[in-house]
Order: sequence, then structure tokens, then C-alpha cells
Amino acid sequence: MSDVVHQKWWGWGVEGVAFNPDNKPGFAPFVRKVIGIDVTGPAGSPPSFDELDVPASRLPDELGATLRRLVGDHQVTTDDMDRVVHTYGKGLRDLVRVRAGDLPRVPDVIVYPANEDEVRAVVDAVVGADAVLIPFGGGSNISGSLTPQADEDRTVVSLDLGRLNRVLEIDSDAGLARVQAGGLGPDLEEQLTERGWTMGHQPDSFKHSTLGGWIATRSSGMQSDKYGDIAEIVRGLTAVLPGKVLTLRPLPSTSTGPSVREMILGSEGRLGVITEAWVHVHRLPENREVIAYLFPNWAAGIAAMRDISVSDATPSITRVSDANETAFSLATRKESKGLSSKVGEGLFELLRRRGWDLEKVCISYIGYEGGSAKVRADKSEVGKIVGEHGGIKLGKGPGAMYDQKKFDTPYLRDFLLDRGALGDVSETAAPWSRLGEVYVSTVRAAKKAYEEVGVQGFIMCHLSHSYHSGACLYFTFAFPPREDTPELEQYDVVKSAIQQSFIDHGGTLSHHHGVGTDHAPWMEQDISEAGVDLMVGLLSSADPGRNLNPGTLLPPEREW
Amino acid sequence: MSDVVHQKWWGWGVEGVAFNPDNKPGFAPFVRKVIGIDVTGPAGSPPSFDELDVPASRLPDELGATLRRLVGDHQVTTDDMDRVVHTYGKGLRDLVRVRAGDLPRVPDVIVYPANEDEVRAVVDAVVGADAVLIPFGGGSNISGSLTPQADEDRTVVSLDLGRLNRVLEIDSDAGLARVQAGGLGPDLEEQLTERGWTMGHQPDSFKHSTLGGWIATRSSGMQSDKYGDIAEIVRGLTAVLPGKVLTLRPLPSTSTGPSVREMILGSEGRLGVITEAWVHVHRLPENREVIAYLFPNWAAGIAAMRDISVSDATPSITRVSDANETAFSLATRKESKGLSSKVGEGLFELLRRRGWDLEKVCISYIGYEGGSAKVRADKSEVGKIVGEHGGIKLGKGPGAMYDQKKFDTPYLRDFLLDRGALGDVSETAAPWSRLGEVYVSTVRAAKKAYEEVGVQGFIMCHLSHSYHSGACLYFTFAFPPREDTPELEQYDVVKSAIQQSFIDHGGTLSHHHGVGTDHAPWMEQDISEAGVDLMVGLLSSADPGRNLNPGTLLPPEREW
Repeated sequence: MSDVVHQKWWGWGVEGVAFNPDNKPGFAPFVRKVIGIDVTGPAGSPPSFDELDVPASRLPDELGATLRRLVGDHQVTTDDMDRVVHTYGKGLRDLVRVRAGDLPRVPDVIVYPANEDEVRAVVDAVVGADAVLIPFGGGSNISGSLTPQADEDRTVVSLDLGRLNRVLEIDSDAGLARVQAGGLGPDLEEQLTERGWTMGHQPDSFKHSTLGGWIATRSSGMQSDKYGDIAEIVRGLTAVLPGKVLTLRPLPSTSTGPSVREMILGSEGRLGVITEAWVHVHRLPENREVIAYLFPNWAAGIAAMRDISVSDATPSITRVSDANETAFSLATRKESKGLSSKVGEGLFELLRRRGWDLEKVCISYIGYEGGSAKVRADKSEVGKIVGEHGGIKLGKGPGAMYDQKKFDTPYLRDFLLDRGALGDVSETAAPWSRLGEVYVSTVRAAKKAYEEVGVQGFIMCHLSHSYHSGACLYFTFAFPPREDTPELEQYDVVKSAIQQSFIDHGGTLSHHHGVGTDHAPWMEQDISEAGVDLMVGLLSSADPGRNLNPGTLLPPEREW
Repeated sequence: MSDVVHQKWWGWGVEGVAFNPDNKPGFAPFVRKVIGIDVTGPAGSPPSFDELDVPASRLPDELGATLRRLVGDHQVTTDDMDRVVHTYGKGLRDLVRVRAGDLPRVPDVIVYPANEDEVRAVVDAVVGADAVLIPFGGGSNISGSLTPQADEDRTVVSLDLGRLNRVLEIDSDAGLARVQAGGLGPDLEEQLTERGWTMGHQPDSFKHSTLGGWIATRSSGMQSDKYGDIAEIVRGLTAVLPGKVLTLRPLPSTSTGPSVREMILGSEGRLGVITEAWVHVHRLPENREVIAYLFPNWAAGIAAMRDISVSDATPSITRVSDANETAFSLATRKESKGLSSKVGEGLFELLRRRGWDLEKVCISYIGYEGGSAKVRADKSEVGKIVGEHGGIKLGKGPGAMYDQKKFDTPYLRDFLLDRGALGDVSETAAPWSRLGEVYVSTVRAAKKAYEEVGVQGFIMCHLSHSYHSGACLYFTFAFPPREDTPELEQYDVVKSAIQQSFIDHGGTLSHHHGVGTDHAPWMEQDISEAGVDLMVGLLSSADPGRNLNPGTLLPPEREW
């Protein structure tokens, strides 16, 4: 068996790591208040794997023998656990279905190639056999990008890139590293930092997502204000296409027609398998700190982030949470740590006396990196802007807490599922001029959907990833479904309302989570029918037989 | 007749504006030294238009009538001058051929639509008649992107966007403007600056190129270090495709699969006609200055630019010329202005005493923009880095001179042609680690080509457009061709040697001039055969009949 480590088959992260409410006294009352459930009582738990009815592998002997010959017996498996792990990502739909044993189509075989040559051989064998190939990285996708189509009659091969996990070389002069696509965030970053470098790319999924997955879905990290989205970080790449290898050399910029690099970015496996990339790396910053601020309300926070984006300051992180998410943050703080000490000292009492409506307070985190002079100048400039919008500085303590907790949120889905509630996320990006409208309309759309479904729901939001012309709004929502209707039907009503609100108010269907099957219904509304036409032309000419991860990116009626 | 103003049919810029050597006493001796020709004697001049043998228009009556009905009689012309103006760009090959009356295929008709609806109607009529459509902006392309194929049997329609030249709206909150594609740089910038905004996009061709042309060729401006390449500046766009309109809404960033925006960027008319775009605009900077520096040699200058690119300083311009281009700059300065005053005061004598080899001196221009504190901090940081590499500050005077002369260089082609010499440019981008190699190899390749051809040639270079991982190197070369061989044959030897050197040493075929027909032979070497396969799939599925500017972007053997 391959020694590639996977996440839990039923949830986020590796076995034994989970959300822990015990040291967060404010959490249970908060959850009771916002979605009306009691999380202190006995919880359900994921089903036992043995209870699952896993469909048998349909791997034909001949293809199986070929794959074993190409990559070695131990790197090809039809083991049920491995196949279930490779069936779903970690979106809410995925988790509900896998917990319910809803497994209409499971990959027939998992292959773990060791290098590009083996990837080539496997791709050619799979396409040659008219089977379906689905590339698999960390398995953390939450848009439905890696699940076999339920009605897929052909053999389904999951190609796990987990063994391609090395930083191959660092070009110190150019600030570029050649990195294999299958490495998880922490593995890659460890190899870089031990030589004094960093990619600076930190998506929420950092611990369980790979470079190849980031590229294939157009990922963005929390520090994108400084380090850029993955589309900027990746300067060159290698991808295995059926019968050939695409090689884009590392270039700072180029004028060679329609960008092939930007065709592979976001391609979600439909053009081939990304095996390695040249990425920007940076020397570890001389100074790094995250400072927390409070704004009297959401509009003030957004306006401040916008002003920062056109100021001379260039922070590495700009983030502000709405009042609901701020309340959530306070509710998940550990006792007598971080914010609470200040709060305990009567900060909120002081703010109330200043006329703040404490129900509307919004917390913000701004990251600073660089030499002392730059950090000082940026802090001064940002401090001025925060003040102009009525905000105040909280300090480094809560900022450090943000850094510690920043990868923890995805565990909440599982915690809530064990307690009968559904939680998920949807994010968008829009011009600054439309963010207020996107926010208000989306919150309203979610509430209307909750009413329609007949549940007590919650939605919260933060702004992250500021650009010259706009920003990303990241929504998290949760509700306990009614028992008289299938829970995913209820979820779909809410999720669809949120997505439609994005599109209707100038936002995109996703800022950095990809299209998958979940967001594909909004593609024509987002990039126009003619845009989808161009994409169909590109994909269908490259993969006429629909062997490469079919079903993702496009609405079903646009498949060829 | 349409009132759209065009450049000279035979050269750069409008009638009456040309390179003037009279107030530059150092110029004639410099030219005599480097390419052995005397520019003080009587010069040739472009032929009279009447001497040209312009092939008659082959516009079928029916298509002509349709076009007149769609856009109005006065906006459709088969006038010979107008047709010749629309036959070529302004590359060296273009100018030599048009001056020689080499007109194998001239557009049969020029159409000047007033708006997107008319563009739609024209595109559909032209494609419906199986004619060829070539979009035309400022006509300043120098890669052969807008010339009809010599053997084109079908009707050729040149679609001039000159009447679509308005800034339609400015979104102040988002720093975005909706701008029509046919506006020339100065027109658009004037409409923006009168409202307090700027795009900051200043390619060498600024005065005679359009937004649509910038997008279609992946342009980059001198201030790209701050404002970005056009690919970053453009956030949304509208393009007319056969039978449909592509609409990409303005988004700061998005995760919607392979980027359709990045397919239109660089498409050089092969996917359709860009009619408008949403572009980044910025408030006019509080402070703006360009400061000149001197480095003891090229390697020191490059190393300093590289260090600046990873420092905390964020200048708007980073530029350094090699020794040859520095000598050229000194030779084209006006008497007792700018540099010369300092030079006159014995600066060079001082440097010589310090041990500088004055043959190797390199001039550099760094631009600063922003609030006083930022400009001060950037200047301080840059000054430190310049000093670390042995450079010295010259000051603002020469910097201001750079700003005045920055759009003048393209006129030199015509000046030299009138005096029997060929001059042109080739530019590339490569990682910092390979720039030295690209430079040395390219200079060597040019010299070898000059020897092979048997001429006295000159080549000079500057670095512009710095990125995290590399920079653009911009070469200018000139030589007087032998009389016993066709001059373009000689030019091709030199141009090909330079292009091949780029590719062989880690550079791209063009950083911002596009592919056209001139650079198409290097496409497979640059983006790999598989990359060209993807591009062919995209283009051929969108335009199976090859009606949209066929011949550009791809080597002929890759056309369908």
C-alpha cells in the first residue's frame, strides 16, 4: 500500500484532530442563540466504515494489470477505504453524502505514480482504455470537483499525486522554486522555510490541500494581498496531457497570445494532470505581525479596507468580519485569553460609553511584513485610515490569536453534523462599489431561504483578499435542517440563494473555491454564454472523449 | 469619409512630426561611429503615394451594400490611401515593404462602426459572407498582427475601431473605468485626467495605440511596475464574437475555470473584436518624479534592479540602459540641457578618477509616485541599493528629460530608412537568474548575424518592467544593409538570431509586442507543442472558417 496519508474518510483533517468546544465557554450559548441547537448534550458520530455499502470496483483486469506494471503493485489499490476517501471532497454535500453511505459511483482504482513519467504512462493508459481519470491532491475541494459522475459507466481511475511532494529546486536569484504538484501546504512550506524561503500561500485548507489543487482551482491564500493569488504565484508549469506534456517555462510576464498558463489554472483536471510548477518564493520576512482593530460597524470596516487598498500602505493581510462573525469569534475564544483580557477590562463598556452599538462591532485583522521602516510606515498609514472610519486598535494579542486559529474553521462542519446541523461556506469577489450591495442582498437572500425552508439559520461574513478594484467576501452559514425533508434539499435552497445573490449583484460565483459541479449552474450567468462557448471549445478539442474529470466546470447541458 | 485620424501611410506618427537631429550635435558622429553612415548629407524620402501601384478593391457589391447599410455610406471606404494605411503596422518589415510599394494584399474595404451594435452587425455580415475580418486600432503593431495574408482569396475587411474612443463611465469607489476599445492613449488619458484619474499605462506606442490593441497584444507600459501590465489593468471586457457578444463583468479576481479574460488578452483579433473594457484607474499621484542614476557597468545596474524588486521599495519605473544605449542617450541629448550640464561640469572626469571605465557606464531611471512619506522612503531604499552596487545619483534633471523624450524613439525607424539604414526592436522577459545570459547571448547573436550578413551593425538594450521573478530586456538594433542582397533578407537573419537567442536562454519571444506573424515561428519553442495544441483547439473551435484575422499567432503549418 502507498504510504500517502489521507484525511478522514468522513470529515476534515486527519483522525484525532477535531473542533474542541470544551475550552470555549461562550460557544454553546452562541450556537443555541443563533441556530437553536444544544451542543452540550450527547452528540451523534460518523457511521462506522463497516456499515457502508461500498460498490465493488469495476476495474477491468487488463487495465489493472497495465497500471500495476506502470507504477508497481503497491501503488495501485482497489481497497474500499482508499476508494471511499477518493470519492468526495469536503464540502457540505460531500460530508452529508459520505456519512449517509450515499456512494453511487466510487473510483474503481487509485493509482499513486512516483513521477512525471509514470503520470504520463498512466494518463495514456487510462485514456487509451477509454476510462475516466480524476486527479486527486489533498481531497479538500468543496465545490464538487473530484467526484465521479453518478451515471459514469466507464472505469473511473483516481490519480493520487501524493508521492510527488518535493521542492525540486530553488532559484535564489529569481525568487522561484520548482515544486511538485502533490505536496501538501505544510510539507512544501517546511522544505522552503528550512532554506529560508516561503511561498506565503495560506488558504484555509492549507494543511490538507496541494499545489496542484491550488492551481487547478485558482486558490488564494490569507496573505494574498502581499503574495498574490495562486494565478500570480505560478509562473511556469508542467502538465501531462493525453499523449503529450505541456511545458511552460518560468517567465515573469509574456506576450504569447491567449494565455495557456491561464488555461491550466482553474482547469480542475479537465485538460490534464499538473505535475509541477515554478512558483514565486520570498525570503522569510524580517518582521511579521498581525494587529487586530475594531470598527463600530461593517460599513466602516469595508470603507477602511477600501481606503487601505488605494493608500501607500501594502499590508499582507486585510480582513474584517461582520458583526455576526465578530460575535462568533468572541464566542470561540478560549477563557481568559486574547481578546477576553481586554474585554474583561471593560473595553466594551468604554466603547458603549463612546456611543458604539456593541451589537454592530466588527473585528479586523491587518498583517504587516517587511523591514522595520516599512512595517512602521504601513502601521501608521493604516492606523490613520482606521481612525478616519471610527475604528480603534486592539493590538497584537488578538492578532496572534488569529494566526493560531486560522486553519481551524473547516472542522466546524463535522462538529455541527454530529449535532444535526448543516454548515458551509460560499465566497465571492466584487468591485468595492458593489460590496455593500452584495453583502446586504446575500444576507437577505439567506434569511429568505431559511424562512422558505422553515429553519432557524445563521449567516456571517468577512472580507479578505483586497485588490485595487474590489475584494473577496467570504460567507459562512449554518442551520439545523427540518426532519421532514431531505437535508440536502434544504441546503440547496440556501446555497442556491446565496450563489444567485452573488451573481445578481456584481459578484462572481467563486473567488477561490473553483467551479466544480456545485457552482457550474452559474457559469453562463458569470462569464456569459459566449464565455462558456469558448471554454467548451477549448475543453472539447483537448479532450473529445471526455476522459478527463468530466462533469466539473460546465453545466451538464453544455457537455459534448 | 470617416474623420478618424491615422498615422502616416509610410511611417510612425502623424504627418509633420519626425525625429529631429539638428539640435542634437552628438547624434551624427555617434551614428557614423556605430553603423558607419553619414546622416548629415542629403537624405532620401518616402515615395510619393501616387507612385504606389495599389491593387484594386475586390469588395463584392453585395457585401459593400450591406456594410453601407449597417454603418452608413460615409463610414465605409474603398479609398486607396485608407486601404494602404490599413495594410501594415509599423514594424521594420512593414515600413520597408510599404515604402517599396510591396502590396500583395490590401484590405478591400475599411469600415468604421460607431458602436457595439454596429460592430456586431459588421462581424456577422463579414463572417456570413465568408470574408476575412481584421480589427484595426492605432495601426502601431510591430509584429505583423494586422496585415492580410498575401494569398488571401477572400474579401478582406478592415474594421477600424477609431470611432469607439470614449471613456463611458468611471466607478470612483472601485477605481475602474469603462472605456471603449478604439481610443488612442492620449485621448483616453485626457478624458481621465480631466476628472482626476489616470490609467498609468504608457507603452512606447502610447500616442498611436489603442486600448483594444493593448489588450489584443498584451501590452505593457513604462510604469508597469506600479500600474501593472494591461493583463492586470483589464478587469472586465466586452468582445463581439461571430453571432454573439462575450461579456466579462469587472471583477477583482475570480475562480471560474480556465480564464476567458486571459483568452481574449493576446488574441490579436482571432477570437473577435474587443469593443470596450473595464480598466483600473488611479487618482493622479500626489507626487511624481523620475530620478536618473549612473552605474559603473551593466551587471551592477541589473543587480540593483533585481534587489529593488525584492526590497520594500515599490517604484513606478525601474529602467537601466546598457553602455551602448547610454551612449546613444548621451548622443541624442540636446545641447546644454539635462545631463550635459552635469557632464559639462566634469562629472565624467570625476568618475574616471574614481576608477570607472566610462565606456561601460549605464544610465538608469527610477520613477517614484505617492505621498511624500512613501516617495521619501522609496528614494532612500533605492538610493541605498544603488550605492551597494557602486552607482551614483544623477538627479531629477535627467529624469525629467527621460519623461520628455519617452515617446520619441519609434520615429528613428523612418529617419534611418530615409538614410538607407534598417532599425528595429525586439524585447523579451526572463527570470532574474537568466537575464545576464540572455543579454550576453543576444548581443553575441546579433554580432554574429551582422558578420554573417557582412554589415556594420549596432545593438543596444535596456531593462524595463521589473517583476518579482524577472524583468523585460528591450533591444534596439540597426545596420545599413548591403546593396547586393534584398534588405529584408538581411534583416531576417539578424531578427531571427535575436529571437532564437531569447528562446534558447530562458526568455520569451515577446514581453509585450505580441506574436503576429513575425514571432509565430517561435511559438512551439516558447509554450511547447502541447501549448500550441491547446491554442489551436481554442481558436479553431471558435472560428472554424478562419474568418477572424487568420495568419497571426500561429505558425502557418498549425493553421486548420
